Amino acid sequence: MGPHPAVAAIRLAVRRVLHDILNDHRARSTVPGTPLALVACSGGADSMALASAVAFEAPRVGVRVGGVTVDHGLQAGSAERSLDVTARLAALGFDPVESVTVAVGREGGPEAAARDARYAALDAAAERHGAAAVLLGHTRDDQAETVLLGLARGSGTRSLSGMAAVSGPHGRYRRPFLAVDRQTTRRACMVQSLPVWDDPHNADPAYTRSRVRHEALPMLEKALGKGVVDALARTAQLSRDDADALDAWTDEAERSVRADPALPCELDIPRLRTLPPAVRRRVLRRTAIAAGAPAGSLFARHIEEMDRLITAWRGQRAINLPGRVEALRRNGRLVVRQS
Amino acid sequence: MGPHPAVAAIRLAVRRVLHDILNDHRARSTVPGTPLALVACSGGADSMALASAVAFEAPRVGVRVGGVTVDHGLQAGSAERSLDVTARLAALGFDPVESVTVAVGREGGPEAAARDARYAALDAAAERHGAAAVLLGHTRDDQAETVLLGLARGSGTRSLSGMAAVSGPHGRYRRPFLAVDRQTTRRACMVQSLPVWDDPHNADPAYTRSRVRHEALPMLEKALGKGVVDALARTAQLSRDDADALDAWTDEAERSVRADPALPCELDIPRLRTLPPAVRRRVLRRTAIAAGAPAGSLFARHIEEMDRLITAWRGQRAINLPGRVEALRRNGRLVVRQS
Repeated sequence: MGPHPAVAAIRLAVRRVLHDILNDHRARSTVPGTPLALVACSGGADSMALASAVAFEAPRVGVRVGGVTVDHGLQAGSAERSLDVTARLAALGFDPVESVTVAVGREGGPEAAARDARYAALDAAAERHGAAAVLLGHTRDDQAETVLLGLARGSGTRSLSGMAAVSGPHGRYRRPFLAVDRQTTRRACMVQSLPVWDDPHNADPAYTRSRVRHEALPMLEKALGKGVVDALARTAQLSRDDADALDAWTDEAERSVRADPALPCELDIPRLRTLPPAVRRRVLRRTAIAAGAPAGSLFARHIEEMDRLITAWRGQRAINLPGRVEALRRNGRLVVRQS
Repeated sequence: MGPHPAVAAIRLAVRRVLHDILNDHRARSTVPGTPLALVACSGGADSMALASAVAFEAPRVGVRVGGVTVDHGLQAGSAERSLDVTARLAALGFDPVESVTVAVGREGGPEAAARDARYAALDAAAERHGAAAVLLGHTRDDQAETVLLGLARGSGTRSLSGMAAVSGPHGRYRRPFLAVDRQTTRRACMVQSLPVWDDPHNADPAYTRSRVRHEALPMLEKALGKGVVDALARTAQLSRDDADALDAWTDEAERSVRADPALPCELDIPRLRTLPPAVRRRVLRRTAIAAGAPAGSLFARHIEEMDRLITAWRGQRAINLPGRVEALRRNGRLVVRQS
C-alpha cells in the first residue's frame, strides 16, 4: 500500500523541487560538508509537512538538507518553541539544524517588519551553511491571500503576481507547495502523526493577512464559489508572466526612446508616443526613479501627469515629482531631473 | 451658489463624454433629425443620475439626445415601470424616447442572458435612431464588482480589466461614470428630488453580482480597508492597458512565428521559443482558435500542454484540443489542425 494521497502529494512536490535545485546547482551539491538546501520551519502545519517530505525525499535523491527555524521573539514561549522545532528537525534527520533569533523592527508595519527580519535571517543562514536553496512551505492558499493583498494595493499586474516558485538571490528561495492546498499539508501532518503548532497570530484579526484568511476569502468563496482560491492562484501565475513580458518590453523601449545614450533621463517624445500606454508608463516610472524619485512615493497619479506631458500637451510647465524631481518638456524631449 | 457637489460631479463627467463623442463623430452630430446619443435608463439611481446630467448638459453642448429603457419582462409590473421611465425621460427633454421589450433567453445563466438581450436591444435602438453613442450609467462600484467577478474566473489580465469607458461597435458604448461612485449618483438623485427605482434583483442573493455587492465587497473592505473599491477600479484600468499592450505584441508575434505565410497554423518552434511565455501562450491560444477550437472550451491546461510541445519536448505525440483540433510537432514546426 502506498502512502496516503496527501503524503504522496507533498512528497511529489518536494521531489520535483529537489531535482530542480540539483539541476541548477550541480557543482554546489558536491561541496563536501555543505547541505544542498535548508528547510525553513516554523512548526506550523505547512512547514512541518514540508520538513517531513524533505526528510523522506532528500536521502532518496542523495542530498543532505539542513533545517532552520526563526524565533521572532514576539510571543511568550517563542524560545522554547524554537528549541522544540529544532529538536524535531534533528530527529527527522536534518543536519545541520539551527534556531535563529531575530530582532523585529517596525518599518512598514508589524507583518512587513517580521517578514523582513525573517528573510534576512534565512539569507544569512544560507550563506553561513553554504546552502544553495532555502525551502519554504507557502501553499496555494497563502498564494491566494497574497494576490488579494496585492489587489488591495491596486498597483497593477506585478502586484497581482503573488509569490514566485523561485525567488531571491541566485534563485535561493524555493516554494514547492504553491500548487498544494493547506488542507493537504494539514492532512499530511495528521496521517503522519506530526504535532503542529498553530501560530495565534494567524488567527488574530489585528493582522491583515489573518482577516483575509478568516473573513475575506471565506466570504469570497461564498459569493463566487469554491473555485476562488484556485482562480487567485492561477491569476498569480498569469500576472507574473504578463508582468515579466511587459518588463522585458520596457527594457527594450527604455533604450529605444533615449534621445542621447549619454543622457538616460532625456527621452524622445515622438518615440514615446509610439509605445502602448502600458509600456510608456513603465518607462516613465523607471525614468523618474533613475532621476532620484523614491519608488515608494511614486504613485499612479504622478505617472499619469508625466504621461500627459506626452499625450495631452497643452504647454504645461514642469511637474513636480517626489524626491525633488521634476519632469518637463523641452525641444521635443521629456527631461526628468533633480529640481 | 453652484449645484450640489454630487450634481456637479455627474455633470462634469457627462460633459466630458459628450465632448468626446462630438470629437469622434463630428459628421454624425450634424445629421438632421438624428440624436447624437441615447441614454440607457433603467430608472435606478445610477442611470437616473446619468439622465439628469445629460438633460442638463446636452442643450449646453448643443446636441440632441434620446432615451431608451429596456423591459426585460422578468418581473411583475416591468411594463408599467418602463412606461413610467419613458415618461420621466420625456419630461427631462429626451427626444426620441422609447421602451424596448426583450425576450431573455437562458444561455450562460440568467445574468448573462439578460445582459446579452439588453445590449442587443440597445444596439438595435442605436441603429434605428442613427445615434452615434449609447450612454450607460455604470459606476466605479460596478467596475469594482466586475473586476472581482473576473478575478473569480482566474483567466488573467484581460478578465481583470472590467468595463471599458468606450466599447462596442464603433465605440458606441460610453460609460461616463466609471470614475464616479454609486454614493454620488444616489446623492445626486436625492438632492435633485429624482425618484429612483431599486431593482430587487440587485439585492437578490440568487445573483452572483448581488452577492459580490452586498457580501463580498463589504467584507473585503472590512479586511483590507476602505480603499478596496478604488483599488479594484484602478486594477481594471491598469489591466486593460497591459492586456492591450500584450495583444499588440501578440499580433506581431503571430506573424513572425508563422513558418509559411500561407499556412497560418504551422508555427516555427525556434522562433516560438524566443517569445516570453505570456506572449507565446497568447499566440498558441489564437492558433488553436484559428484551427477551429471553440474559445469557450479552451482552458489554461490546454495551452499549457501545447506549450510543453515547445518548451518541454520529450517526443510527445499529438495532443487533443477541444473541437477535434490537434497540435503536434513536425520538422521543427508546431502544427495545429483539425484531427
